[in-house]
Amino acid sequence: MNLENISSAMCFGGWHKQYLHDSAVLGCRMRFAIYLPPQAARGDKVPVLYWLSGLTCTDENFMQKAGAQRIAAELGMAIVAPDTSPRGEGVADDAAYDLGQGAGFYLNATQAPWNRHYQMYDYVSRELPALIETHFPVSQRRAIAGHSMGGHGALICALKRPQDYVSVSAFSPIANPVHVPWGQKAFAAYLGEDRQQWLQWDACHLLGQVQQIPPLRVDIGLADGFLAEQLKPEALEQAARAGGHALQLFRHPGYDHSYYFIASFIEEQLRFHAAHLDC
Amino acid sequence: MNLENISSAMCFGGWHKQYLHDSAVLGCRMRFAIYLPPQAARGDKVPVLYWLSGLTCTDENFMQKAGAQRIAAELGMAIVAPDTSPRGEGVADDAAYDLGQGAGFYLNATQAPWNRHYQMYDYVSRELPALIETHFPVSQRRAIAGHSMGGHGALICALKRPQDYVSVSAFSPIANPVHVPWGQKAFAAYLGEDRQQWLQWDACHLLGQVQQIPPLRVDIGLADGFLAEQLKPEALEQAARAGGHALQLFRHPGYDHSYYFIASFIEEQLRFHAAHLDC
Repeated sequence: MNLENISSAMCFGGWHKQYLHDSAVLGCRMRFAIYLPPQAARGDKVPVLYWLSGLTCTDENFMQKAGAQRIAAELGMAIVAPDTSPRGEGVADDAAYDLGQGAGFYLNATQAPWNRHYQMYDYVSRELPALIETHFPVSQRRAIAGHSMGGHGALICALKRPQDYVSVSAFSPIANPVHVPWGQKAFAAYLGEDRQQWLQWDACHLLGQVQQIPPLRVDIGLADGFLAEQLKPEALEQAARAGGHALQLFRHPGYDHSYYFIASFIEEQLRFHAAHLDC
Repeated sequence: MNLENISSAMCFGGWHKQYLHDSAVLGCRMRFAIYLPPQAARGDKVPVLYWLSGLTCTDENFMQKAGAQRIAAELGMAIVAPDTSPRGEGVADDAAYDLGQGAGFYLNATQAPWNRHYQMYDYVSRELPALIETHFPVSQRRAIAGHSMGGHGALICALKRPQDYVSVSAFSPIANPVHVPWGQKAFAAYLGEDRQQWLQWDACHLLGQVQQIPPLRVDIGLADGFLAEQLKPEALEQAARAGGHALQLFRHPGYDHSYYFIASFIEEQLRFHAAHLDC
């Protein structure tokens, strides 16, 4: 079987596990983490929340720092955390933290050298869910969430494939990448200079294109140093309003961009998803 | 003031902060972390739990991975996490993970070159609490807890200074260091070859010396790969029984030595301390 279990740890009565597998879409070996709540060991098919992490992260950051397993164990929800880019010696990279390995931006690259491996959108929205649903005791009910670059990823997955996710949420998402430095740098590299091609990977643009979206919740910290320059939640708010879509946007005074913020409100986001995942 | 604030993040309505300071006892610059619950910002003097981490850790592991702030915020308890050894270029070190920097074993070294800086017992039990009680809105009610090497540290602090701590707990402590490889290696280096000198740093020995001990809780995972060779909870149990001391020892099937185990039961340990800290 194309799944190599490399770690297992009991956590809140369920199991945190890491696996390696050969990704056909990415053309490299990938690691992901899954949290299986106690209900899964009892044979129940549990729904899955996909979590997409931010710049520089791997599958580990959320699982180690968010404190999500306590609530997932109570709710009977699996959580899957992929890596944030293709990885390995043969995979294109850049010395900067915000391009290349650790910074895949959850899109399908069209430009060399990135297009050979950087197909993270297809990986997280198609290949990985199919793998998870084949090999683990999970249902086909999926929700998606993420942080920062991963918040952008969660939004575009849910807006491009609204039929595949029952709900979507984000902490501090890069909500309007075509208009901010992180997004412009990555999109120019991965997608080329034709900015028309960028729009299909921009949550604010997609909100004006799609008819119906899954229930959507966003949490931002008002002491987040990236808020005005890189995240642009007000653009998301305007785009949702213009598109006639509901957005639950929660502004939290005093909180920054860190996992201390995520840990403080992950319970609220998981309960939001649980209401739609029927768990 | 001899305190340099180097990070602040809101967490569950309170604040996680890191500080640098010059330690007179250790003769080097040290970093510690403190979680101040919301009650502290309102001017209440809150009690303090000191958390001692295990081999290779810094002040960060517990604060990032245990999920303790949620409960501390509810209870109105501050948490202080020191580093696990003296640090810096001028501080003796060893290439091994279990000796030198990151592995101070919370004792006062007597042997060169270690004795110049490795006085972690005096640091965590005297210098640091005095600093915390001078500069933060905390009461003088102290509890102490730790993991692995830090579980050993918490036990010896509470057994050597039972009047200073209202309660003590440990996850997976090195409970009988004089009889296990980790302890024997460190004690030989820090304390020399006279094994009589080692006994005053061994929790099992101290349990036979002390008249009264603070309420004591220990949690161990039965799938912990270090259990039989390095931790020896049964020796602790026997020593407590022989000394006439109460020990609440909880054995958890399936759990290992990791922070996934700590996260799963930190709420129980914090509520145990809260009952004695009157918070």
